[in-house]
Amino acid sequence: MDRRSFLKKAGLAGAGATALATPAIAQGNQTWRMVTTWPKNFPGLGVGAQRLADRITAASGGRLTIQVYAAGELVPPLQSLDAVIDGSAEMSHGAAYYWQNKSAALSFFTGVPFGMTSREMAAWVRFMGGQEIWDEIYDQFGVQGFLSGDTGTQAGGWFRNELTGLDSVKGLRFRTPGLGGRVWEKLGATVTNMAAGEIFQALQSGTLDAAEFVGPYNDLALGFYQVAKNYYFPSFVEPGLATELVVDKKKYQELPADLQAIVKDVCQAEYDQVASDFYANDPRALKTLVEQHGVNVRQFPDDIIEAGAKAAEEILGELRDSSDALTKKTTESFIEALNIVRTRTEGTDGAFVEARRKYFKI
Amino acid sequence: MDRRSFLKKAGLAGAGATALATPAIAQGNQTWRMVTTWPKNFPGLGVGAQRLADRITAASGGRLTIQVYAAGELVPPLQSLDAVIDGSAEMSHGAAYYWQNKSAALSFFTGVPFGMTSREMAAWVRFMGGQEIWDEIYDQFGVQGFLSGDTGTQAGGWFRNELTGLDSVKGLRFRTPGLGGRVWEKLGATVTNMAAGEIFQALQSGTLDAAEFVGPYNDLALGFYQVAKNYYFPSFVEPGLATELVVDKKKYQELPADLQAIVKDVCQAEYDQVASDFYANDPRALKTLVEQHGVNVRQFPDDIIEAGAKAAEEILGELRDSSDALTKKTTESFIEALNIVRTRTEGTDGAFVEARRKYFKI
Repeated sequence: MDRRSFLKKAGLAGAGATALATPAIAQGNQTWRMVTTWPKNFPGLGVGAQRLADRITAASGGRLTIQVYAAGELVPPLQSLDAVIDGSAEMSHGAAYYWQNKSAALSFFTGVPFGMTSREMAAWVRFMGGQEIWDEIYDQFGVQGFLSGDTGTQAGGWFRNELTGLDSVKGLRFRTPGLGGRVWEKLGATVTNMAAGEIFQALQSGTLDAAEFVGPYNDLALGFYQVAKNYYFPSFVEPGLATELVVDKKKYQELPADLQAIVKDVCQAEYDQVASDFYANDPRALKTLVEQHGVNVRQFPDDIIEAGAKAAEEILGELRDSSDALTKKTTESFIEALNIVRTRTEGTDGAFVEARRKYFKI
Repeated sequence: MDRRSFLKKAGLAGAGATALATPAIAQGNQTWRMVTTWPKNFPGLGVGAQRLADRITAASGGRLTIQVYAAGELVPPLQSLDAVIDGSAEMSHGAAYYWQNKSAALSFFTGVPFGMTSREMAAWVRFMGGQEIWDEIYDQFGVQGFLSGDTGTQAGGWFRNELTGLDSVKGLRFRTPGLGGRVWEKLGATVTNMAAGEIFQALQSGTLDAAEFVGPYNDLALGFYQVAKNYYFPSFVEPGLATELVVDKKKYQELPADLQAIVKDVCQAEYDQVASDFYANDPRALKTLVEQHGVNVRQFPDDIIEAGAKAAEEILGELRDSSDALTKKTTESFIEALNIVRTRTEGTDGAFVEARRKYFKI
């Protein structure tokens, strides 16, 4: 039974329930449960979920105290959203693309192949209609989503052998999930998914030829460098990975206005804080990988990137032609916004970064 | 008389004053004055200062209400920091490089030629020791600084005539302030500064050959396209412009812990919000400039960029050799952090953006 049908049967749904519940909630301190999809202390993301919770608790002076449950502590990681929907938690910290089975459109709020960087994503969500569409999707489930972090552009993956070109992708047994996996499948790879904890052994035994996970900050800890020495950059299928905080919408709207503001403000602050963590610590980890573990940093051959772009165009094109109205609408909004913001990112920011790379040494 | 010497004379300085003041502050609502260096409703920045104030007011439930004074309303814009130091305001919203006369090191917390992008700046300030050094500088003045926004990489400027190469810079009368101006001076330009309101007429009359201000979002409103048609990208002297919120440190520390957290959280949220505003609205404004006003978007010739990089290396090198210990320390920390984070920005993020530019069309 879901929460709403329970409330309905108990005669508590609708305006009456709100009127009854609001005064009690508004007056006292309350504790909310946050389930997460991340292991405890997982660099950047698990740490970020805990820090977000602590910041809400601090900014609210304890009036809204958030108790964090790491992946598996209260519910399995991939049931986090359901836990909020069925009322066993008030919040979930994870990534919207984990819930593609509920709506294919949710991928766009995490990141898609050749899609948006973290700055572009925030521009779309906050100033170009993204949040409104996201609300429309999540309204169906009685929840509300907020951006709560971003990894920045990820690494392309660990490869046992050097890639010589598109031909060398054929039959490659590659661990890479989601829409990124579909891109690599179109390039000829044999794509599999497996949990983080299984990747190392599969690479070591030769069951896998390659695997991508996140980036140096996370990958260093998992020890992939011991069994695969070629580390490719950048990921063109994960230009960013935005995390989300999902809250029970009814309970959120019953909070006093100042606590609603605090939840929203802290999520946005953490969107910056998590990204800052990755931008500071990914390159430090990469330095360790190269200097202490003999990892070879490589760029994908051009023909692989070009074929990847065509594959991504096909996949996004299919989503734009979706028979699901909200998926179609989301894809159209995303593509329209991307084609606007990319003129800045590619023509201004990217051009500066390239100029600095080429000419500035200090 | 400054605020501190007044307090001292009145016998209120030190621990006793804190003990007396805290309870009264902790209990009641209070209103703080925020002076700003921006005109009211100035796109991105003036709007951002007002929004930041409103968000603190909302998240605190009115316990800390912020009253905003646009440039000139309470004090002239370039006296905003002094207003906080002398106690005539509790907060100032502006850019740290306006206060270079107090410490040359402050430039680094806004942006320097060939320096950090907005993501890199946040990584340095939040995870690589930047905030701690900034605190050390501002401690001398009894204030505390927080990042509160960023424009992203700016435009390079409006030029009446097309630039054909480094030779065409010689003698060019160019409005471009600060360290960026020093770079252009080294390239042979005749650099001047003038207030925003005077630029248009100077370009029209031919007193100026070129001017840079911010980027399309701000520049469109000022109408430069009517008198100069060549709009160059990117600015290599302003890879970002971080804004700051400066607060009276003693008053800040006397706030209850939850209000201190709210001020900090909202500043960080606004760092993201202001950047999102520019990333969404700069390209929209640029589209208008090109399609409705016939502006030519151009990239600087390579030899100008290369010479600009050498000039920036010299200027940052001088700051690193400064006889002022804090300026030296700041420059060293900045350069060390830049050399770490740039490996990510140039090798991963920049490489993705370039790959997308080259191959992905949708």
